[in-house]
Amino acid sequence: MNPQPNKTAPGVKRGVRATRPAEGAAAPRQGQAAPKRQPRRPEYYAQRQRRQETKAIPMKIYPLGGLGEIGKNLTVYECAGDMLIVDCGSLFPESDMYGIDLVIPDFAFLEQNRDKLLGIVITHGHEDHIGALPYFLREINLPVYATRLTLGLIGNKLEEHGLASSVETHELVCRQKLQLGCFTLDPINVNHSIPDALAFAIECPAGVVMHTGDWKIDYTPAGGKTFDLAAFAEYGEKGVLALLSDSTNSERAGHSASESSVNAGLAALFSRADKQRVIVATFASNLYRVQLLIDLAVQRGRKVAISGRSMIKNTDMALELGYLHAPDGVLIDIDKAEKLPPEQVTIITTGSQGETLSALSRMAGGSHRQIHVGPGDFIIISATPIPGNEKMVTRVVNGLLKLGADVIYENMYDVHASGHACQEEQKLIINLTKPRYFIPVHGEYKHLKRHAQTAEAVGIPKKNILIADTGDGVTLSANGIAVTEAVQAGAVMVDGLGVGDVGSVVLRDRRMLSEDGIVVLAAAVDGKTGRLENGPEIFTRGFVYVRESEQLLEETRVAVQKVLESYQHQPHRDIGGLKTHIRETASSLLYRRTKRSPMILPILMEV
Amino acid sequence: MNPQPNKTAPGVKRGVRATRPAEGAAAPRQGQAAPKRQPRRPEYYAQRQRRQETKAIPMKIYPLGGLGEIGKNLTVYECAGDMLIVDCGSLFPESDMYGIDLVIPDFAFLEQNRDKLLGIVITHGHEDHIGALPYFLREINLPVYATRLTLGLIGNKLEEHGLASSVETHELVCRQKLQLGCFTLDPINVNHSIPDALAFAIECPAGVVMHTGDWKIDYTPAGGKTFDLAAFAEYGEKGVLALLSDSTNSERAGHSASESSVNAGLAALFSRADKQRVIVATFASNLYRVQLLIDLAVQRGRKVAISGRSMIKNTDMALELGYLHAPDGVLIDIDKAEKLPPEQVTIITTGSQGETLSALSRMAGGSHRQIHVGPGDFIIISATPIPGNEKMVTRVVNGLLKLGADVIYENMYDVHASGHACQEEQKLIINLTKPRYFIPVHGEYKHLKRHAQTAEAVGIPKKNILIADTGDGVTLSANGIAVTEAVQAGAVMVDGLGVGDVGSVVLRDRRMLSEDGIVVLAAAVDGKTGRLENGPEIFTRGFVYVRESEQLLEETRVAVQKVLESYQHQPHRDIGGLKTHIRETASSLLYRRTKRSPMILPILMEV
Repeated sequence: MNPQPNKTAPGVKRGVRATRPAEGAAAPRQGQAAPKRQPRRPEYYAQRQRRQETKAIPMKIYPLGGLGEIGKNLTVYECAGDMLIVDCGSLFPESDMYGIDLVIPDFAFLEQNRDKLLGIVITHGHEDHIGALPYFLREINLPVYATRLTLGLIGNKLEEHGLASSVETHELVCRQKLQLGCFTLDPINVNHSIPDALAFAIECPAGVVMHTGDWKIDYTPAGGKTFDLAAFAEYGEKGVLALLSDSTNSERAGHSASESSVNAGLAALFSRADKQRVIVATFASNLYRVQLLIDLAVQRGRKVAISGRSMIKNTDMALELGYLHAPDGVLIDIDKAEKLPPEQVTIITTGSQGETLSALSRMAGGSHRQIHVGPGDFIIISATPIPGNEKMVTRVVNGLLKLGADVIYENMYDVHASGHACQEEQKLIINLTKPRYFIPVHGEYKHLKRHAQTAEAVGIPKKNILIADTGDGVTLSANGIAVTEAVQAGAVMVDGLGVGDVGSVVLRDRRMLSEDGIVVLAAAVDGKTGRLENGPEIFTRGFVYVRESEQLLEETRVAVQKVLESYQHQPHRDIGGLKTHIRETASSLLYRRTKRSPMILPILMEV
Repeated sequence: MNPQPNKTAPGVKRGVRATRPAEGAAAPRQGQAAPKRQPRRPEYYAQRQRRQETKAIPMKIYPLGGLGEIGKNLTVYECAGDMLIVDCGSLFPESDMYGIDLVIPDFAFLEQNRDKLLGIVITHGHEDHIGALPYFLREINLPVYATRLTLGLIGNKLEEHGLASSVETHELVCRQKLQLGCFTLDPINVNHSIPDALAFAIECPAGVVMHTGDWKIDYTPAGGKTFDLAAFAEYGEKGVLALLSDSTNSERAGHSASESSVNAGLAALFSRADKQRVIVATFASNLYRVQLLIDLAVQRGRKVAISGRSMIKNTDMALELGYLHAPDGVLIDIDKAEKLPPEQVTIITTGSQGETLSALSRMAGGSHRQIHVGPGDFIIISATPIPGNEKMVTRVVNGLLKLGADVIYENMYDVHASGHACQEEQKLIINLTKPRYFIPVHGEYKHLKRHAQTAEAVGIPKKNILIADTGDGVTLSANGIAVTEAVQAGAVMVDGLGVGDVGSVVLRDRRMLSEDGIVVLAAAVDGKTGRLENGPEIFTRGFVYVRESEQLLEETRVAVQKVLESYQHQPHRDIGGLKTHIRETASSLLYRRTKRSPMILPILMEV
């Protein structure tokens, strides 16, 4: 990595400085987005460092996402006038966010603090940690720091948004520290369901904060490195001001299963399916799982075909970066796979969550162009449904079973291991780091609360545990921890090209329209006399099956016609009042007759 | 029960006859619905009986709901020209059924066979077994047979629909046989999460079919009777033609937990909550659970208040019918409960599924009129979320926790036991009944398939197991079991007062409207010349936030205006073509600019 000190310009106030350049770093990419921030002069820091020696400086933490929700993780650390962003994730829309594609954090607070921002560091490459990056970088172009695989995933994303050439990215390597303003970041290896996941020890004048990202402890990781317990212990010994730790699995007792434990389950299934084609669906980002499947296929003399856009994209990148390995000739094209005998083929595919347009979903519906599922297939869904997806997964399972395939799904075998720490792991990390303050993060309120209870159980005093919310400004100092301010934060909805242009009014209308449809009543009236020239005509969409409701609609039309006629001889016509009258007349008649409340839209064309 | 033989009228073709009147029967109710069927003359049966002795008669089974889905259970049995309906349930709408309140079976096949229908027998009082009754009885008024509690629940339902006085109901008592045409029904006690649940042995010239309804085996039921294993064994010894058995839990190994096992878990929680108010949410129909909670409250010197419309309705009825017992003064009004010290109060409430308008949901949102939740509350959700409800339950849990209450939910303790049999129970019943044919019912395809595998594992030959689908006509004879016909069946959607008037077109429109809203383009044109008199004007709902999109909307308006103007000098104006042109122009412009596809509605008012 090259921190580009030559780009320092006089008079520029904020910047980026890496104390130890990482090896094998990706070259910084450049382009057209917002103008880049420039590094500060080193003397500035030296000066400030001296000030800090005389007086402990408080630290502020602003979680702008990920608290009280699972997703759109974004945390801002502020100390001595410097700000650092950790992660920039997105969230899948809730079921009541009609038509919304994606939810991202509100960046208003960051825009207000543009000048303090030094960079974005990323823990790992899952959507809930990187999904909002393109939307943020379009507004504020900061350098992005992440491990090699994570940078690969970010690169794909920036390319899709046409930002690849304009954003500066830097590679992080474990235990190679990075200095950003007054912050010294130490990237520490953790285990998760994607390779190259990091925690950060963030050192600043206020002390050291441990930010875990998503993590679990895997003593026998599949191919990856083990969790760097020593680094956590080292900081614990030196003294940790605060620990911010992943709460996703805080309700689960015990210890998460190792990714390797999945191996035995899958191996048994492969041997059971010896005469069949094996199709395995899993998360496109779980490259450990993909490697494990490739290895099993090789052992069994099978070829491997990759299916699904994101699976193809991720495996291609991972092969290129060396995160996946396959002997020559093992990976074959999906078209070629269809021509081989079933027992010689394994297909690795997307769709483990039953996503409507995914490859597995299309197979289940018989609409996949190349893969036709039948009794010769042995299908493994190597994932558990994310809450909310259960019904979609069931639909896919039913479809595949009906086609005659054997299907192994959810809890039938050990075919999945969670990527998040359970209670015993959470206790271990609290014990190792011995933080003065504890802030549970990454979870809905119930997860945070449960994690707080675990922390209390292992000896963190209740007054030193803070359950914060998205948008809280948390101040940590020697005196205590407290929410000291509220900043603008929340959910910004992305719909098509629109970012934030769908708000509560539009959503309320979409909900109304989805429940009972719309009734449009249009009439042409004389602009001067108010005489009804034509109409009213009635149009409905999503309300009733028109052919069977002609009488009801005609009655409504006639009732509205009477309203219109009653207004036509009035000297001072009140168009607003007339529209309200039409709306109320139609609405109450239709409700009385159908117990439905369609949206009523009166249109008066003056001629 | 009085079979009313005096109502037999000459020349009437179909009827009802009970061989052994049950004791303590509810008096048949009468009223105004469709004209009632009348009983056949006894001679008719004697005649037919003799015919049957000479030749084995096949039996037909028509599942009109409940196969390939969880809900709207309705099975029709046909033998020797007689037809019998078992259960008549509803289904909650799927998430893609926008605005739909309820789904019921298609009754077309039953209407086609009106003259053969003898009556409806009900296994138990859950919605998925009785929810469609009012809709059916409105069309075809048949006598309804059920146990006392089930009749109570049906009565409430009929009353809501104004049918209470016009429908004839008869009480069933376990092991007291009922003859309906050529069918002899033997009601057999089973365990389930509601008291008074039945299986039926249905004897007819073709043989005996065992129809289980929903069941589990509870050796230590909470207050109720044990599962009548002896009756199942008795029929097994005599010979069972077919077994139709509940598949809901067919994926679960082992044996379901006893309702009594919940007792210990709840008792421990009551003692933990000794200084707090205890609020317990459970299903309004689970009267065992309600009794258990009343008993625990009494033991702890607490009063009990009931909250939630359906909970109040059900407990009132159950107290009246003797299915619930409480010492005098224990049950108090909710208003009074608010005035007592917390440790003296238990509230039993609806809302265990997180239903938006339920009492518990309102408590969590701080909008319950009487109950204000706070740190003094200990709240137990004594139910597991039905698939699809997880997120709603989580929302309620988060809300309650934020108010400072202690909340015990899902799997944190043994606070719920399922009402459906697991694999070992399913095996036991197949072993006891030794059926020639096996048809798994009540479940999605994956459940039926798994149940079929269990049956095969305990020795039912594969060719004698049939996984049928809703709408199949299944023929059972000495020669085998097969789907021999397809009848009209499916999902009829209820929306407000409309039954079946919302079909796929209306739903498709609702989906479109929900995703991107609607854009209406209205113009007034001269009817003769086609000259544009006014407009076009543009109206949107659910599309964009109008104030921030004025430019986009104006551009669209101008583009459509050009289209309109281009048509105004054409001699043979093609209104259909013009509307299509408007639609395409607006649609492509808006998609290009927003990547959204709102519904476009062009309106041309001729003046």
